[in-house]
Amino acid sequence: MTVYNFSAGPAILPKEVLQKAQEEMLNYHGSELSVMEMSHRSSLYDGIIKEAESRLRQLMDIPDNYHVLFLQGGASLQFSMIPLNLARGKKALYVNTGAWAKKAIQAAQAIEDVEVEVIASSADQNFNYVPKITPDMVDQDAAYLHITTNETIGGIAFQEIPDAGKVPIVADMSSNILSNDYKVTDFGIIYAGAQKNIGPSGLTVVIIRDDLLNDEPIFAPMLDFRIQAENDSMYNTPATYAIYISKLVFEWLENLGGVSAVLAANKEKAQLLYDAIDASSVFSSPIAKEDRSINNIPFVTGNDEWDKEFNKFAQDNGMLNLKGHRSVGGMRASLYNAFPKEGVEALITLMHQFEEEKAGK
Amino acid sequence: MTVYNFSAGPAILPKEVLQKAQEEMLNYHGSELSVMEMSHRSSLYDGIIKEAESRLRQLMDIPDNYHVLFLQGGASLQFSMIPLNLARGKKALYVNTGAWAKKAIQAAQAIEDVEVEVIASSADQNFNYVPKITPDMVDQDAAYLHITTNETIGGIAFQEIPDAGKVPIVADMSSNILSNDYKVTDFGIIYAGAQKNIGPSGLTVVIIRDDLLNDEPIFAPMLDFRIQAENDSMYNTPATYAIYISKLVFEWLENLGGVSAVLAANKEKAQLLYDAIDASSVFSSPIAKEDRSINNIPFVTGNDEWDKEFNKFAQDNGMLNLKGHRSVGGMRASLYNAFPKEGVEALITLMHQFEEEKAGK
Repeated sequence: MTVYNFSAGPAILPKEVLQKAQEEMLNYHGSELSVMEMSHRSSLYDGIIKEAESRLRQLMDIPDNYHVLFLQGGASLQFSMIPLNLARGKKALYVNTGAWAKKAIQAAQAIEDVEVEVIASSADQNFNYVPKITPDMVDQDAAYLHITTNETIGGIAFQEIPDAGKVPIVADMSSNILSNDYKVTDFGIIYAGAQKNIGPSGLTVVIIRDDLLNDEPIFAPMLDFRIQAENDSMYNTPATYAIYISKLVFEWLENLGGVSAVLAANKEKAQLLYDAIDASSVFSSPIAKEDRSINNIPFVTGNDEWDKEFNKFAQDNGMLNLKGHRSVGGMRASLYNAFPKEGVEALITLMHQFEEEKAGK
Repeated sequence: MTVYNFSAGPAILPKEVLQKAQEEMLNYHGSELSVMEMSHRSSLYDGIIKEAESRLRQLMDIPDNYHVLFLQGGASLQFSMIPLNLARGKKALYVNTGAWAKKAIQAAQAIEDVEVEVIASSADQNFNYVPKITPDMVDQDAAYLHITTNETIGGIAFQEIPDAGKVPIVADMSSNILSNDYKVTDFGIIYAGAQKNIGPSGLTVVIIRDDLLNDEPIFAPMLDFRIQAENDSMYNTPATYAIYISKLVFEWLENLGGVSAVLAANKEKAQLLYDAIDASSVFSSPIAKEDRSINNIPFVTGNDEWDKEFNKFAQDNGMLNLKGHRSVGGMRASLYNAFPKEGVEALITLMHQFEEEKAGK
């Protein structure tokens, strides 16, 4: 049975990347070393991390006045690091678009001397749309405006980045980095846990504009953006193997034609599934059409028993991790860069079978 | 040419572990998934992290009243997390045994409301010995006494753990965890970056006694020991693949006969090298005999040119990463659990050749 992995993260990786990693596992480029065994200060490893950075810069068109940091702790640690570095004694603005935005907001609120203001929220409609942000809503004295470009659980995405005037936009891009054509220059900081479109978990990519590096040192060096930037992500030992796998993913993406090519493919996959959902007599999407994510697609039957039944039916037919997040229920198809179109087609076939079975019931 | 990897970390891993990882890279136990692609919430992955924990508990004889946490950020993040969780508004005691102890001390000092007291130091002799700690030196109102059981750069190790009365001992055990027979019950907290005796970098193991979990929440959930413990290291996505590799290393160590067997082998390897150094007319160890590390063995010729020459000679003969840390100079042989005895013998042969060449000069 062919298996399709719909996991929201850690998620499917390109087969070619895994094959390359397999080949090189015990002997990277004739060194007789695994990348896992390399000193992070060795010239051999230096080549790997530098190449990872330059490929990411190329793929995302990152200008020279942005640092690229390879950190640890996931987006969850960034939820605290960002206000600690940028907003102590200041106001920080947030848009509440769902589960992950809320986590970012709560983490900022837990810091005593940060004044958190939620300037817009879609809580009134159970986070099924992206609230409009207009320039007049953005206090120009704020340290930043935080958005979650794609809500992994809720399934909404910003199609356009708001105009925040001179206030830098800080974005949690964990679930749609490298899967959209956002412009880096529209952001002050972009951060992303690697485990969706980049590589293995345990790596966090932070892209930060020069002028946003903290002036005052943070009380914990590992949390200090300036220290991390000045040490080229080597203040301590970084997640060396995860960075290597990411380098392979960046190569794969380049060979595929870069972000514009993968975006076109992702749109096609998502459209197939949304069309099937919208045409269905059984399944439906809770998300406003214009705000739908192409990466995380939740859908429901509206009947808990049927959801359960369909999840089991799908699992029995090789669809792994399709079950919706426990906070939402139903189903969720996470269609990241490496997810094949055939997997979407196979899912749609199962949906049709299920519909026929339920027809008239 | 046979290559021997003397790296201080990330360091050599057992060949059997790398082979197993290679085999399973695209298909873990028939799942058709790489471990890197598994949802950390899947039952398949749950089996992996649970097994990693239970094997580590067995190997180190960790009692039930200790939590085992798989975190991120390395020992360097622990340098801040530990005082933040345990010592705010209190006194924290430190022993200064060299480069890594100093980093831990500086990180604690950077936190405003922690009173740091260095109760002993070997700075007077360039950190070439372990200062004696007697119970009367330990303020019984302190939050903890911090030691670095093995100084990776300096090459000293605690042969016995001090008696600190009722004050819990907190230990950075990064470079000799699973390579000694310390008793877990002698410590309140043990922490270690994985990249020496455990697995890939990007994973930090923390072993913490129940009663030391913080009562008050920390302002950053990712830094909060209680939150991490209550979520079984899954407050957010952990470094799943690094945990998997560690599980394989734990299995390998069990098959080898556990910690006592590897300790005996490590002692033998270290003794071979120390004997060669002590008998040499060219090389010498700067470290007091009774405090020498069996894991990190620095040695020098006392002549910068000769050091350089020997490092080049060694490298040309397949000895990788033998060069001493930039702050110490000379050479450093890191002999972790996976380092083969043949590599030590090969190094000694080169040392003898070098000595003969230099004889009489």
